[in-house]
Formats: sequence, structure tokens, C-alpha cells
Amino acid sequence: MIAHAADSLMDAVDRLAAPVCVGIDPVVARLPEGLRQADVTTISAAEAIGSFTLHLLDAVAGRVPCVKLQSACFERYGHAGVKVLGECIAAARQRGLVVILDAKRGDIGISAEHYAAAVFGDGAGRGDDARPDWLTINSYLGEDGIRPFLGAGRGAFALVRTSNPGGDAVQGQRLADGRTVAESIAAVVASIGEDFVGPGGYSSLGAVVAATRPEDAASLRRLMPRQIFLVPGFGAQGGGVADVLPCFSAEGRGAIITASRSVIYAFEDGKGGWAAGVAEAAERFADEIGRAAGLR
Amino acid sequence: MIAHAADSLMDAVDRLAAPVCVGIDPVVARLPEGLRQADVTTISAAEAIGSFTLHLLDAVAGRVPCVKLQSACFERYGHAGVKVLGECIAAARQRGLVVILDAKRGDIGISAEHYAAAVFGDGAGRGDDARPDWLTINSYLGEDGIRPFLGAGRGAFALVRTSNPGGDAVQGQRLADGRTVAESIAAVVASIGEDFVGPGGYSSLGAVVAATRPEDAASLRRLMPRQIFLVPGFGAQGGGVADVLPCFSAEGRGAIITASRSVIYAFEDGKGGWAAGVAEAAERFADEIGRAAGLR
Repeated sequence: MIAHAADSLMDAVDRLAAPVCVGIDPVVARLPEGLRQADVTTISAAEAIGSFTLHLLDAVAGRVPCVKLQSACFERYGHAGVKVLGECIAAARQRGLVVILDAKRGDIGISAEHYAAAVFGDGAGRGDDARPDWLTINSYLGEDGIRPFLGAGRGAFALVRTSNPGGDAVQGQRLADGRTVAESIAAVVASIGEDFVGPGGYSSLGAVVAATRPEDAASLRRLMPRQIFLVPGFGAQGGGVADVLPCFSAEGRGAIITASRSVIYAFEDGKGGWAAGVAEAAERFADEIGRAAGLR
Repeated sequence: MIAHAADSLMDAVDRLAAPVCVGIDPVVARLPEGLRQADVTTISAAEAIGSFTLHLLDAVAGRVPCVKLQSACFERYGHAGVKVLGECIAAARQRGLVVILDAKRGDIGISAEHYAAAVFGDGAGRGDDARPDWLTINSYLGEDGIRPFLGAGRGAFALVRTSNPGGDAVQGQRLADGRTVAESIAAVVASIGEDFVGPGGYSSLGAVVAATRPEDAASLRRLMPRQIFLVPGFGAQGGGVADVLPCFSAEGRGAIITASRSVIYAFEDGKGGWAAGVAEAAERFADEIGRAAGLR
């Protein structure tokens, strides 16, 4: 019996008392000195960000419950990058980390089923370990763009409120019934998610809700009581501890705060070995959020 | 001097008097008999849909100006599928077809730049010919999810109104100012697109507007006079000739009607050689739409 995706994620958070996720967005230009190469080809670039990712996984495993891999960083190196991405997903799972693939896929019907198979299926010739536990998806296509991703027994985080300024012009618009577009999508997500609630009370359909909109987060939390919130925007993107608190339930549960650049490039301050700097930043991040949520 | 993406596409349409696009969504289960295999592995499946695609390209080249490749169909076979996809894009361009990659990518800032590089850049180690001319993108993230895709001198079709029933619950919602969500996104697309208008009057930022919503299409055409409409939903998805007419300008220009299953699986009616059946269906489709638009 495979555990429900939401339960597995919440259990992993509880074990470490750390409702956080480290975002891994590796770029060649910011690799630590020892991993840089003078002559960068496509394959060597893909291998270099793969190698950096493996070191990052070693540095954060045991300190945070989960990682979010940015698919775009790997896809930019074509099929070589996609191959390395699969290896990194497997490596993360082997280290006991819950893996979120941040690919923001979105299509309808049979095309959405193809994407679900690409991420969660065995058609890509991978073992079970090379598939992520969760995937981010786009919700602009509505219900038939969401359901196909939930059939594999894994989880999906649907975009509801994003952290970028341009998101306001779409998601922040006010409907005739008084709700924002983001709130109306939250209602769609909450409704679909009811069909996928696990024993622990959370759904395998979660929601992306940015930390940069604390006033929206409180209303979205009420509209989506069974959704785990994946919360980008903390740290480098400007959100602070006070901004993320409305994403949690009263018990300090149901949200995963993500930080990427502030952790994986922590070594750029130049102190000590680079992997140690990343580990320390991950630990500090987990402790800060764990305390704020009342789990430590 | 490289031609503007919108001019190249409109020129290709004008040369054949055929404002159409054949959607290539190959699946192993529906391959013609001669291309089927008894024992399907990941790599052989990727190669089989690649081979099918090459035959399709031969059948439609010279009959239609452009093809739309469904990325998900290839991605489901992992890195092997992504490699074959690149080869198919190159093959289509070598046959003189304008290539739209239907990947519906959407992210913000640096991540969107990574996706743009993945599709249009040289980081994947491809020659210029292995990159598509256009890409479909998701517009739920707003302006900073759209602009990064327009820097490469190629084109992007932003989702405005999709053909699926679930799209209504999001895109069909009425705003307080009386517009639908789709209309408000159309205004965003029109505004951004102004910065990318070519000599021929059309922008390299186009819009996906489904044929299944003729009443919406007329209003969206008014809101987006400089956008080329990529129009899915014709044929197998239920849209007819009358439904697509509002997508065209008064001169019968500015829209590309797409059909996929009704063309690429035309051989399933069992008459004659399969490639000849596809060629005939493509020709019939081009003629039907070309006449309806007043170009033939």
C-alpha cells in the first residue's frame, strides 16, 4: 500500500519539524568554483548542473523534507538536460527527500494525460524512483487541465496566486461577484481536490500561493482548507516570515515555504566550503520557518 | 536580415492560400499498421512516433503552410522523446513548413528565460533548424510570463480562450467591469504585442482562441487586431467552418485554423495507402478553410 501523496509530504515535514522546501534552480553562470568549466558544451553544461544538484541534495538532505527542481533549468540543455533531470530526481528520492518537479505543465484531455505520463508514468523508461512525488501545474485551463494529473496517485500543486508583479493583471482582477480571479480558481481547486483527500485531511491537489501576497493568502487559506500550499517568494523574492504565516493553518500545518537562491547560492558570500554554506543556510531556513510555524 | 516571425507565417499562408495548420499529436496506439511494433520499449516508441511524424511531414508539406507539434506526445518518452522531437522540428523546417511547438510553457522571470532558451536558444546544442518558429505559452502569469518568450526574434501564441469545457470556469468568468477573464487577458496580450509588430501589421505575440467559442472569437478579434489567432477545436473537437470565420479579419487574414486527429488519422477509414489518405485530408482541409476565408 503506497501512502497518500499529501500524507507522505506532511509526515516528512513533521519528522523534521520543518515546513520548508529548497528550490533547486541551477545555472551554469553561478556554479561554485570547483564545478565550473572553461569550455562549456551542451552536454558538459547539463552534467555540471547535475553535479551541482547532487552536491546540493547531499547538503540539504536530513535538514529539509523536500526539494523543488526547476525543470526549465534542465530543459534548456535539451535531451541531455532532461536525462540529467531524471537522474537528479532519482538521487533526491534515494536521499529520502520528497521531490516536487516545478514544470508548470498545463494542457487538456489527452495532451494533459501525455504530460502526466511524461512526469509520473513509466513510458520514459525510468524506474519508480526517477519520478517526482509532486508536479506544479497551470490552472488557466480549468478542471480538464487539472484532473488528468491526479490519476497517478502522486500530487499536483495548481498555480493560484503567483509571486510576480504581472500576475496581478490576471489573478488580482475583481469578478462581478466580488471575488478575485485567484479566489475563483481557488474554489475550483478546492472542489476538485475534495476527490483526492487523504487520511490526514489534506488533498493531493495542492495550490501555489505566493508569499508576496499575505493579504490574499489569508483569504485563500479559508477557501482551500484541504490544500497544501506551496509558497514561493520567500527570501530572494522579497517575502518575509510574517508574510508566510497566513499560509499555515491554525496548527502551523498545511504549507511548505520554498526558498531557492538564498539557500543554493549561500556560498556566494565566500565563507567556508561552499557545500557547508548551503547546508548551514538550509538549516537556518528550516529553523526560522519551523519556529515561526510553532513546530520548534 | 531574418524576416519577422509574423510576416514569415502570413507569407507562408498567402503562398498556399491556406490559413491552416496540421496538428501532429502522435500516439503509439494509433500508428498505421506498417509502423507498429510488437514489442514496444521507450526508445522504440519514441522512434516509432518520430518515424510516423516524418511520414506525416512528407504528406502535408506543400499542402499546408505550417504544422503544430504537440510536445507532450514526445515528452512522455523522456529524453529519448525530446531528442526525436528536435529531429522532427528540423525535418519540418527542412520541408519548408513553419513549425509551431505546442508546449504551453509558462513561468516567470529567469525561469521563463530558461524555457525560452530551451525552445529557441542554442543551449540545447541544436542547429538553427531544430528550433521551432513559434511556441504556445500560458498567460495566467501575466506580462512577466509572456515577454521573456519574445526576445529571441521568434513568435509565441498566448492562451486566451481554450476549447475545453473546463476553460469556462476560469476564462469565461465575468469581471466587475463587464469583460470576461479571457477578454481582460486579450487586452494584456494586445498591449504587450504592440511592441512586437512586424512590417506586415501582425505581432509576433499571437493568441490561442478556440473555434468552439464563435461568439467570443468576434469580441476577441476586435480586442486583438494585431494578433494572429491560432485556432484549435476544428474538426474532431467539434468546431465547424462557420465557427472559425469570426477569427479572421475582414480580409480573411490573421488566423490559422488547426486540425489534428481529423487529418493525421485520416487513414483509419481504411481507404488506400495511409500517407495518401493523410495528404488528401490535408488538401481537403486547406481547401475548405481557404475557400471559407475567401483566399481561394
